[in-house]
Amino acid sequence: MTTPIILASGSAIRREIMEGAGLDFDVLSKPVDEAAIKHAMLDDGARPREIADALAEAKALRVSRFLESQGRRALVIGADQVMVMDGTLFDKPVDRAEARARLLSMRGKRHELIGGLVVAEGGAPVWRHMSETKLWVREFSEDFLDAYLEREGDLVTRSVGAYRFEGPGAQLFSKVEGDFFSILGLALLPLLDYLRTRGVIPS
Amino acid sequence: MTTPIILASGSAIRREIMEGAGLDFDVLSKPVDEAAIKHAMLDDGARPREIADALAEAKALRVSRFLESQGRRALVIGADQVMVMDGTLFDKPVDRAEARARLLSMRGKRHELIGGLVVAEGGAPVWRHMSETKLWVREFSEDFLDAYLEREGDLVTRSVGAYRFEGPGAQLFSKVEGDFFSILGLALLPLLDYLRTRGVIPS
Repeated sequence: MTTPIILASGSAIRREIMEGAGLDFDVLSKPVDEAAIKHAMLDDGARPREIADALAEAKALRVSRFLESQGRRALVIGADQVMVMDGTLFDKPVDRAEARARLLSMRGKRHELIGGLVVAEGGAPVWRHMSETKLWVREFSEDFLDAYLEREGDLVTRSVGAYRFEGPGAQLFSKVEGDFFSILGLALLPLLDYLRTRGVIPS
Repeated sequence: MTTPIILASGSAIRREIMEGAGLDFDVLSKPVDEAAIKHAMLDDGARPREIADALAEAKALRVSRFLESQGRRALVIGADQVMVMDGTLFDKPVDRAEARARLLSMRGKRHELIGGLVVAEGGAPVWRHMSETKLWVREFSEDFLDAYLEREGDLVTRSVGAYRFEGPGAQLFSKVEGDFFSILGLALLPLLDYLRTRGVIPS
């Protein structure tokens, strides 16, 4: 029997990416104090890449240790994504007003999405991957922005950039550079490659 | 009243991309003798880019002229994608056996997807875009391939490469380079940009 795959994320799009690729897996996410980790690391001068990596690891380890405590073996996938603009790290906006201000500040500028991806097994990390993508937000009008926010509703608070690139968020951009799956929050091809080397999906 | 947008394609993924981006449009596709156009152009020594462009134009013009004949005005989007490997142009496989042979021939090699995108209005082309993406197929096993073909069924005959990159086809690849939407067959960001300049979607 092959080792089960567990996605330690409540993100709908990460689940959709893995389902789309035809993977057989379960979802089990457990709370992690992301703000505490992030702020402690920022205080220590950590770089955004290190923070995304640490958060992905924390999510994977949290679930992996829980399963370990129950005597269950699994490959647990943890993922995190941070946004960087002008050298500053951004959290998910807490509400629509913050999302609006955030998007206005991104207008006409480039930002980066940095993704951490970690697989844990038996309470320890066994694989990790980092991705970086660049996105240019176009000079949209405030009328456009208000219609966009109205259409997206609470969904704008579920991503660091206040957009679903796979949805109407695509209308915010003039140009993007980098892997699409990484923009969405899960670097699928490297992950598939690792899962094949582990023999948990057919090669 | 803004000019309506018509997608002149029966492709499910092209419709999904446009719906995902929140566009308001209708689908109306009319048959075009793609094989005749392609073979005539190949006989004339046309390059793959020219063929993809001509096919996209033919599809857009066919529908645009039909609408014109009814006195209806619209921006009609035509799209085509061709696959090139080792300098040879490939059509969609006609059946599963051809898809199997095609995929085996692509194994361990790079191929390109070349996309043509044309907008027509009043029976004439008014905008066009070309995209080129590179994809590397990994050294998959025949067991993997047979399971993949079984799972995908007739869907393998609906794309030039015999894969849905947005689905289990992702498991065929070691690496891809280029815009995700273009891989799927519709260069969304340039198209949105054009539609904004025309004032048919909010900017």
